[in-house]
Amino acid sequence: MNFTNKSIILKQRPLGKVSANCFEYQESSVRDLIEGEILVSNAYVSLDPAIRGWMNEGTTYIKGSPIGEPMRAFAIGEVVLSKNKNFEVGQIVQGLLGVQTLAISNGQGLSKCDISQSSISAHLGVLGMPGMTAYFGLLERGQPKPNETVFISGAAGVVGATAGQIAKIKGCRVVGSAGGKEKCDYLLSIGFDEVIDYKSEDLVSAIKEKIPEGISVFYDNVGGETLDAGLANLAIGARVVICGAISQYNESSIQGPKNYMKIVTARGNMTGIIVFDFLERYPEAVSQISEWLLEGKLKHKEHIVEGIHNFYKALTMLFEGKNFGKLLLKL
Amino acid sequence: MNFTNKSIILKQRPLGKVSANCFEYQESSVRDLIEGEILVSNAYVSLDPAIRGWMNEGTTYIKGSPIGEPMRAFAIGEVVLSKNKNFEVGQIVQGLLGVQTLAISNGQGLSKCDISQSSISAHLGVLGMPGMTAYFGLLERGQPKPNETVFISGAAGVVGATAGQIAKIKGCRVVGSAGGKEKCDYLLSIGFDEVIDYKSEDLVSAIKEKIPEGISVFYDNVGGETLDAGLANLAIGARVVICGAISQYNESSIQGPKNYMKIVTARGNMTGIIVFDFLERYPEAVSQISEWLLEGKLKHKEHIVEGIHNFYKALTMLFEGKNFGKLLLKL
Repeated sequence: MNFTNKSIILKQRPLGKVSANCFEYQESSVRDLIEGEILVSNAYVSLDPAIRGWMNEGTTYIKGSPIGEPMRAFAIGEVVLSKNKNFEVGQIVQGLLGVQTLAISNGQGLSKCDISQSSISAHLGVLGMPGMTAYFGLLERGQPKPNETVFISGAAGVVGATAGQIAKIKGCRVVGSAGGKEKCDYLLSIGFDEVIDYKSEDLVSAIKEKIPEGISVFYDNVGGETLDAGLANLAIGARVVICGAISQYNESSIQGPKNYMKIVTARGNMTGIIVFDFLERYPEAVSQISEWLLEGKLKHKEHIVEGIHNFYKALTMLFEGKNFGKLLLKL
Repeated sequence: MNFTNKSIILKQRPLGKVSANCFEYQESSVRDLIEGEILVSNAYVSLDPAIRGWMNEGTTYIKGSPIGEPMRAFAIGEVVLSKNKNFEVGQIVQGLLGVQTLAISNGQGLSKCDISQSSISAHLGVLGMPGMTAYFGLLERGQPKPNETVFISGAAGVVGATAGQIAKIKGCRVVGSAGGKEKCDYLLSIGFDEVIDYKSEDLVSAIKEKIPEGISVFYDNVGGETLDAGLANLAIGARVVICGAISQYNESSIQGPKNYMKIVTARGNMTGIIVFDFLERYPEAVSQISEWLLEGKLKHKEHIVEGIHNFYKALTMLFEGKNFGKLLLKL
């Protein structure tokens, strides 16, 4: 058989803002599998803020995506050929399969997905890495207690919306920030108690007004001014969970939180969430989130862009906050 | 009897850098004591970075020092008159007695000092608030384990030098930063394993070179570039203890730590130390530190400026890092 792989190659690393020049479309023949390998036909690629980090040379915890190879990304697809006894043809698998239509894998790091009760795409969102990030970041790092107030920045993203709904399930008061009326209305519709539209409200005063009791758990996806606005209004004993800094990834110089001393005066702490640390506990979270989805306690929203050629466009949407729901590229 | 109190009054609050105009020397007659009050003749006033914060309007955890009254400061002295059955004339007491020669107090917040085995001035340093800050900040927040590396910025100050020596007693490798050869030599003489002179070395590269294993406990007294330099070199599981930010107190705009995401990738946490939270445990720390002093395991150094008129000069020395040892004003 002759398979043609269509892929988006990382051509060069960005300095600051990502440009279209960083990527190149490529077609190539798929080589024969060796023993232990499988070929996966990708159905969806996940657009996550982490991609921006992987475009860099490397960080403390993970090397950058190699130049000249398909851009690293989470994807989900079906096994179409298998020389690995752990994977059958027809099995749905998810993992770092890259921005390409056909991926060869030795199976390491892939997880098998049960799609009998959920859509295939959900396994890249609420049941995938973003859902796991929300679950473990909020519950393990944030340690929310009933009646405490949880503030989530970037709340309309899949991580934020999921974390917020889990906080509601755990009995917290939940306030979220997002850009624009449509996203804010959505957050109210899925149970957020209060929302702040950062495009039309002053964040610092809106947080003070809407959270007079102070923030006990601050789940931050945004960084920059947003992080400072939240820090300015912490409750005593606050837990600040740094999940991301979407406002900063495209900046060549990061803006540090001027208000970091507020963590001291609030007797709080700041930690972060690296979801891979919880790999062994994913099944627990997938099972719990699936149950909440079936019970209707947790909702999720997807934003699907079609065609591999639209990868850069979709990535740009992500960084400009123009997607609404979990952003996926359908291949 | 007619007593004359000599005091340094807080005349106005500074915008950014403290100037001599903020203070005014005043002499006044001491009024008669009412029931429950004592009169303390202050021997020493403690110059602490916290004074800069008290000059402001107020913060989350403490109100500013009132305008028109003696500048708030820790001081130690002897009870010379008493209408309070808990305090006898001749008793040595320590607390927020202010920058003045004679202080009226109702006794609240004062602690009695046993000077049978230590100098009176030690109770404002290694046995006073700075010592308590070092003890509880390092041990409770930093949780150092044997063989871990502890990095202390501003290590030649009494808090830093005490925290470093306690870390050595607990079996850690200890690296400190300070300004100038004399201070660095002093740190080596009291047992620091390695020192970094920020005036002659590049902090970022010096930390990487001298702490290749990464920092497990970062006890930060400095903030700004120093905080960022330490964050850039955290070990996995690092604890960052924010004790102070002496580099920033005189700035009208605080520089936030650009490298705060390193806390995330290091799976670390950032907390702070507010020493008043440990008030009930001071006796434990005083007793332990006294024991270490007597055993010669812990050393301390004092820098004494004489005369109440020199308060502003001494405060300036503190912020410019020109003192060497615990800075005290002798009245």
